Amino acid sequence: MGTEIYRSLEAAAIGEVLELNQALDGLKFDADGLLPAIAQDAVSGEVLMLAWMNRGAIERTLAEGFACYWSRSRASYWRKGESSGHLQALTEMRIDCDGDAILLKVEQSGPACHTNRPNCFYLSVETDQVRVISEPR
Amino acid sequence: MGTEIYRSLEAAAIGEVLELNQALDGLKFDADGLLPAIAQDAVSGEVLMLAWMNRGAIERTLAEGFACYWSRSRASYWRKGESSGHLQALTEMRIDCDGDAILLKVEQSGPACHTNRPNCFYLSVETDQVRVISEPR
Repeated sequence: MGTEIYRSLEAAAIGEVLELNQALDGLKFDADGLLPAIAQDAVSGEVLMLAWMNRGAIERTLAEGFACYWSRSRASYWRKGESSGHLQALTEMRIDCDGDAILLKVEQSGPACHTNRPNCFYLSVETDQVRVISEPR
Repeated sequence: MGTEIYRSLEAAAIGEVLELNQALDGLKFDADGLLPAIAQDAVSGEVLMLAWMNRGAIERTLAEGFACYWSRSRASYWRKGESSGHLQALTEMRIDCDGDAILLKVEQSGPACHTNRPNCFYLSVETDQVRVISEPR
């Protein structure tokens, strides 16, 4: 069943609902139990960063109202901003059509990127080079 | 070297450049040779979908000017819209601070989602349920 739940919603009308637990049970986590999660500024629409969530990170984010990811390098939960203070207050969480990606709309405090830039996507690809387009604060 | 290139740019000023091949050589592909790629509507800022790219998909996208992904289910290149006509014309490609995620700004023809919705993130998480928030065209 589980992952079939997303297929069953393909033709669903606006307003149809599914129990949260059923939706979470159906998520297609990878071999490490993770899904990619996109953080988007709820106001500007700017894509801030991409990180990873396991089921626990999703549940913590929903329970606490602030983005919590899974740090692959540290192999532990990563409450975004817990050391820097650059928290992401959750405005809305979305799940995609296949149940294999998460979108977080957030209110970002301070810079989202560990380099102190407003977002992580500061390298723009040009014809035969890549250009830095924002600076650390 | 390779992946060190992204660390070396952390403090870089606006306008610093890197050769494209050097940037691509430094990308941190996963064990399957893939990176998550976010497609964002270049005009509205709407996050349309998340898909996967290997180096070949990145190079094809840059050469052709339309998004080309790697289909994990079909294990082949997936020129977005090649069967549906729902192409994504590339406006800009960005690489993130760690060299492990891609952002594509695109002009989307037709619906981005295979369910014929404008974007794939049509399931909104509420307190204890998930709600369908857009309908197939």
